[in-house]
Amino acid sequence: MSTPRGPLAVGIDLGGTQVRAALVDAQGAVLARAATRTDAVGGPWAVMQQIKGLVGEVTQGVLRPDLAGVGVSAPGPLDSEAGMIVCIPTLPGWIDVPIVALLKDALRLPVVLENDGVAAAIGEWRFGAGRSLRDFVYITVSTGIGGGVIADGRVLRGRRRMAAHLGHMTTAPEGELCSCGNRGCWEAQASGTALGQAARDRLASAPASSLTALGPAVTAVDVVAAAQAGDAFACALMAREAELLGIGIVNLLHLYSPEAVVMGGGVSQAFDLLQAGITQWIAAHAMPPFRTVPVHAAALGQNAGLVGAASIVFAAAD
Amino acid sequence: MSTPRGPLAVGIDLGGTQVRAALVDAQGAVLARAATRTDAVGGPWAVMQQIKGLVGEVTQGVLRPDLAGVGVSAPGPLDSEAGMIVCIPTLPGWIDVPIVALLKDALRLPVVLENDGVAAAIGEWRFGAGRSLRDFVYITVSTGIGGGVIADGRVLRGRRRMAAHLGHMTTAPEGELCSCGNRGCWEAQASGTALGQAARDRLASAPASSLTALGPAVTAVDVVAAAQAGDAFACALMAREAELLGIGIVNLLHLYSPEAVVMGGGVSQAFDLLQAGITQWIAAHAMPPFRTVPVHAAALGQNAGLVGAASIVFAAAD
Repeated sequence: MSTPRGPLAVGIDLGGTQVRAALVDAQGAVLARAATRTDAVGGPWAVMQQIKGLVGEVTQGVLRPDLAGVGVSAPGPLDSEAGMIVCIPTLPGWIDVPIVALLKDALRLPVVLENDGVAAAIGEWRFGAGRSLRDFVYITVSTGIGGGVIADGRVLRGRRRMAAHLGHMTTAPEGELCSCGNRGCWEAQASGTALGQAARDRLASAPASSLTALGPAVTAVDVVAAAQAGDAFACALMAREAELLGIGIVNLLHLYSPEAVVMGGGVSQAFDLLQAGITQWIAAHAMPPFRTVPVHAAALGQNAGLVGAASIVFAAAD
Repeated sequence: MSTPRGPLAVGIDLGGTQVRAALVDAQGAVLARAATRTDAVGGPWAVMQQIKGLVGEVTQGVLRPDLAGVGVSAPGPLDSEAGMIVCIPTLPGWIDVPIVALLKDALRLPVVLENDGVAAAIGEWRFGAGRSLRDFVYITVSTGIGGGVIADGRVLRGRRRMAAHLGHMTTAPEGELCSCGNRGCWEAQASGTALGQAARDRLASAPASSLTALGPAVTAVDVVAAAQAGDAFACALMAREAELLGIGIVNLLHLYSPEAVVMGGGVSQAFDLLQAGITQWIAAHAMPPFRTVPVHAAALGQNAGLVGAASIVFAAAD
């Protein structure tokens, strides 16, 4: 890895469970990867050291001039303009952390910060399922629901770059309580967490389901596996999940008018079980000019955020 | 009016009840106005003649070189890029009308077409309550709910320029049937039409209200008047209306992150009765960084769409 290869950047995905790193080239190819369990107890300072270590690991042998910088993807709310993490609900002690300034000091490299949903949207837009689209909505459906919007050929930003908190539109005012404190957010209805909860809530009504053996430990992953094996109860839960996703997606069609919606995140691993139901919901509930807008699975999988965050470094350097 | 005054444009507001016209200068000032009852029975051809007549009326004495063109604001769905009205639910026979081509032929002037909500948003953005904002959402609350979005200093367009169908986000999946055929659209919950319906539905429970005398003829206008006079039943309806508007506005904050939300349309004439309730709803239900975003009444009133449509002519000529 000692010959020059043009600009490279490191993407960092800072999550509540893992910190992941990837060395990415300007064509979006991942050249090296590393990951470690997030030192949640150690707080921001310890994690900063972890990031520094991961950057060292994935850039072994890379000449300094070839390294354009580091792009960090993190859960919101954050202020990507100020380079500040406002708070990470899953990481205690992460309140108002000026992560960009701290990492710049530690790494002596340009550092940019991006909301994880937006970073993944940018990854899919530049190198994945949204390539060459002017108008495109990316949703990530996993523990929560996040995402990002490309509108008229640009990343939709808004005030303080806080547009596209897609999971926190209310789709059912009397619905489930959300982690944000509100009730009936799309995330609280249709995330993987909500899918697992729905399974547990209804388990008693489905004694014939293979999921009953798991009892209160059932999660979305189990529901997907059971549905893939043909379990009727799990299939019904997935059909309902497709509708709940459809409700939010129809809203996004009407609000942003994308050419396509791309779905990533853990739940999208069951995309083949969801696509028909989502498509039918759209056909039945969107206004006529929006009914044919396709919904695709993400193309970059777990790499979308890493690649997207790294690519922001190149764009910033343009 | 024979001395040159720089570029002028005519704004046309094509509505189901009235066709209105205004002569507008590049500073957004309305120099002349005219209106006529829409010839709904005569169909597109008759209305085209009406528009031609109104343009003649408001441009009397204007030198031809001073007239930059005509901007038409019309209810959707329409394809402003193609200059085509797809359909106007309140005007029978208006299906796939190439209004821009027809008017260009008839007027021998540049003609542009804009969704009425977006036209009003542009008017308020350039000359009204959204002036100088980079990120701004305009909502019009009257028979339905429409609007437009300014994001990152530009009009949000999306595929086929159909973004920002704000009234057709589902805010209550089991809610009222909407004119679009869907259930629980924000428009079906919180428009002036919905407010009137809510009053009629609950009238029997409010024998002391002044509205009972009106019986099944009660409309939103009556509710507003009664609330302004202190009628307790009407005040409760307005308080609920503020909440229903708040639900949708919180979604718009999370989705577009505007610096302000501006409300126009008939129901906004009761803005003083609604503002406190809307603001309280936002403070209680938006995520922390969005809680202080203000909601203002529109500044241009009924002229927003006319001025906005006319101003598009100037922008197109730039």
